[in-house]
Amino acid sequence: MTGTALDTALAYYHAWTGHDFDRAMTYIAEDVVCDAPAGRMEGAAAFRDFMGPFTQIVVDTTLISAFGDDKTALLMYDTKTLPVGSAPGAEHLTVRDGVITHVRIIFDRLPFDAARKASEVDAR
Amino acid sequence: MTGTALDTALAYYHAWTGHDFDRAMTYIAEDVVCDAPAGRMEGAAAFRDFMGPFTQIVVDTTLISAFGDDKTALLMYDTKTLPVGSAPGAEHLTVRDGVITHVRIIFDRLPFDAARKASEVDAR
Repeated sequence: MTGTALDTALAYYHAWTGHDFDRAMTYIAEDVVCDAPAGRMEGAAAFRDFMGPFTQIVVDTTLISAFGDDKTALLMYDTKTLPVGSAPGAEHLTVRDGVITHVRIIFDRLPFDAARKASEVDAR
Repeated sequence: MTGTALDTALAYYHAWTGHDFDRAMTYIAEDVVCDAPAGRMEGAAAFRDFMGPFTQIVVDTTLISAFGDDKTALLMYDTKTLPVGSAPGAEHLTVRDGVITHVRIIFDRLPFDAARKASEVDAR
């Protein structure tokens, strides 16, 4: 039994928001495809390089909404991060055999871009 | 009968993506509260000023996912717009008596910001 797509999506969500990113990655397929604001990533290693650093700057998270059916789940959450006070995100997850095979993630890159530029100015 | 929150959310979505924004606004409560990347808007007039111009630059839309329960709905969609080729968004909608009372919308402002800056350079 692998449960529903929503079960898998929430297990993944609770793992990474609970600062257990290694456990979160156990829900990600080796051949995962992730469509993020900056473009497409293919494979678990690329996905880890994308999400891992983000999970390390997350201070707090709130699940706003979560739905799913047999094959897909849709989540929206807010995060508080070190550089950005409120950085909400939404994820559409496709699940096969208990692992996530596709992630479409939406978030606003603008405040992260602004924080990065401000830190570069500070560093001068 | 007002139907489910998802019915209202989809009626709103199909109206604005079908370029009938006036009809879309009939699903929006007078006292709507909208949390968008740039901050909070209160009231239907402010919401119209925010969403109206966006709907005019939308060339095409694709509904990626839509779920809901009695009171809320969660949508994810992709849009093709004049300045930005792929501008996906996600909306969490709260519905009361057949109208939308709260919208939480997530999208990436960065490509719109870049397009605006590029057009300012072009205009010089």
